[in-house]
Amino acid sequence: MGPQSRAALAEALGLSRAALSGLSRDLIDAGVLREAELNRDASRLGRPAILLELNASHAYFIGVSIEQPDCVMLLADLHGNILGEGRFPLTRDPEALAREIARAVPPLTEAAGLAAGKIKGKIKGMSVVLSGFVNHAQDTCLNSAILGWRDVPLARLVETASGLPTVLENNANAVAVGEKLFGRGREVSDFSVVTFGEGIGCALYLGGRLYRGHSGGAGEIAHSTIEPGGLPCRCGKRGCLDTIASANAIIGAAREQGLVADTPQQIEDLAKSGDSYAIRVLHRAGNALGLAISHLIQMNNPERVVIASVGGNMGNLLRTVTKQSIDAYVLPELGSMTDIRFDDVERNFWARGAAACAAYRYLTDFADDGVVDAA
Amino acid sequence: MGPQSRAALAEALGLSRAALSGLSRDLIDAGVLREAELNRDASRLGRPAILLELNASHAYFIGVSIEQPDCVMLLADLHGNILGEGRFPLTRDPEALAREIARAVPPLTEAAGLAAGKIKGKIKGMSVVLSGFVNHAQDTCLNSAILGWRDVPLARLVETASGLPTVLENNANAVAVGEKLFGRGREVSDFSVVTFGEGIGCALYLGGRLYRGHSGGAGEIAHSTIEPGGLPCRCGKRGCLDTIASANAIIGAAREQGLVADTPQQIEDLAKSGDSYAIRVLHRAGNALGLAISHLIQMNNPERVVIASVGGNMGNLLRTVTKQSIDAYVLPELGSMTDIRFDDVERNFWARGAAACAAYRYLTDFADDGVVDAA
Repeated sequence: MGPQSRAALAEALGLSRAALSGLSRDLIDAGVLREAELNRDASRLGRPAILLELNASHAYFIGVSIEQPDCVMLLADLHGNILGEGRFPLTRDPEALAREIARAVPPLTEAAGLAAGKIKGKIKGMSVVLSGFVNHAQDTCLNSAILGWRDVPLARLVETASGLPTVLENNANAVAVGEKLFGRGREVSDFSVVTFGEGIGCALYLGGRLYRGHSGGAGEIAHSTIEPGGLPCRCGKRGCLDTIASANAIIGAAREQGLVADTPQQIEDLAKSGDSYAIRVLHRAGNALGLAISHLIQMNNPERVVIASVGGNMGNLLRTVTKQSIDAYVLPELGSMTDIRFDDVERNFWARGAAACAAYRYLTDFADDGVVDAA
Repeated sequence: MGPQSRAALAEALGLSRAALSGLSRDLIDAGVLREAELNRDASRLGRPAILLELNASHAYFIGVSIEQPDCVMLLADLHGNILGEGRFPLTRDPEALAREIARAVPPLTEAAGLAAGKIKGKIKGMSVVLSGFVNHAQDTCLNSAILGWRDVPLARLVETASGLPTVLENNANAVAVGEKLFGRGREVSDFSVVTFGEGIGCALYLGGRLYRGHSGGAGEIAHSTIEPGGLPCRCGKRGCLDTIASANAIIGAAREQGLVADTPQQIEDLAKSGDSYAIRVLHRAGNALGLAISHLIQMNNPERVVIASVGGNMGNLLRTVTKQSIDAYVLPELGSMTDIRFDDVERNFWARGAAACAAYRYLTDFADDGVVDAA
């Protein structure tokens, strides 16, 4: 996040320009933001604009992604640079997990090569992300099928164990916050992120703000019904996108066809060599994924959809079929206005999103002193 | 819209409480708002809250719904009461239509039984609504397949012809604004309206604000693909909801089965008498409509969905199947948290929504003087 105009910074933080102008003075006084070089754009007349830049080393944040078998944890600065990374095995007991997270903080800062003293007091927050519904206050996991949790106040448990301000977030939402602050969502107000990893996730930025829905359930694309009456799903319904297009579903379908494959990439390789079963499996998955994304576009008319392939799970054929399917199922007027982008991301991108959430909360908390209204 | 708290009024206008508190003084000074009786709720301790009430006869608004064969036009006060109504035949030429609208204003105020002098100067605005995409500035129809329009600056044409401040809106969006100000959306921040008339429309309130999408296309449920590879649609795709569940599609499907029917209600009557073809047609339509609404719920997690049946188009069987289909296709956790309401509305409800849009613009324009930030 280099030097940028007040307008761009307001957009990234989801604040109105009026709210940011109240806020930026406080942020400059606190050393979070500094006035950077003047914007000497020779092609424009008039007074050059003063750009603002986040001071990268002013504050550090910890992002934790709850995954199986191992949780991923990393330390990032205010520009989203990763300074250290660690892993620890998942435990499903919330209190034990909170203790595990707290225990992993000191080794993480040491691994980052930063003397504990140097950044002491500069770790301003932590965010824990998971697959599940999170409430608006970002302190409680309302429901997570994968973790078997219901109404777990994890943020409080982690705060108590670690002493760090902690927020909770759905992992796809966290990725969208990361894209908004540091990535492909910076200059757009209305965008969606679809994540394609072991499962399929989705998050929505609408009107410049992360949209969680009434009860934290927005973006539940994985369990949208794509083939009514289709394969039974672990959620209780049938024909969910998850039963057709998730990495597990693709591998399962390939094996049913007698193929030997442990990863979607192996099925891509078989398809590339002309194996008609592999081609069929990937077509069915891409067609379903494209149909689900078409519903997202028809309903919300985003400016951009970022489809993030985690750890190489989405190969060329699957991308091509997905894109063709979106084109076939979206109203032409809407489709031509929607920027569809495929993106390869590393396995730590959930934890990156988590760190971005912690940074976002830190920055916008300056706006919550009653002076300006951020909501 | 009776007396209400500042918080409730802020919610209805989509303003933050801070923005409303800046605004309400101006509105009271202008005579739009008055402080009403105290809220003497004996069950609560503390200082009784001062309630605010819109002054119904402070201002009047004209709502115009562009429909075929006749456009509907009405005059409403600040409480949404209808004082007069008129009709004129649709012409598709934008300039001629603007003149037609302007010509219809004086007879409308006379039909309302109000001496022209009495309300002269009190008509504060007009809103014209249509089936199509409208830009964020609410002055241009970007695209309307039904009208054959592209980039038509209708608001300016109507303003020039009538001398009244005019805003343009998509008709389903207008209905949602009406529900938010005067109807079933008053106390909820996240709700969707699905309109079931000749066509099928949809509008979204997200986080307390009408959501138009990036280019005015949000809520395009009618052309979401429900049966991939299904019946050809006038939009160029196949299997759109519109080809299965619109009133026209239902009548067409019934006739193909050899039934004699001119309205969906006649098909309902046949189904009630046990006609298996009629039952099948309505099941297919309700199943498709429920599937499309399930995608809306999965994607946006609204608190409430209002399904508005226009002019009796949606009978009992169609409602029942739609509801069952939503239940079958939505993730159980999300479904149990979503309030699905069916509502019967009269044919003038598009024009009612239009009048609400004009009132909404008038009220929130007070916030656009740079003092407070409404967006």
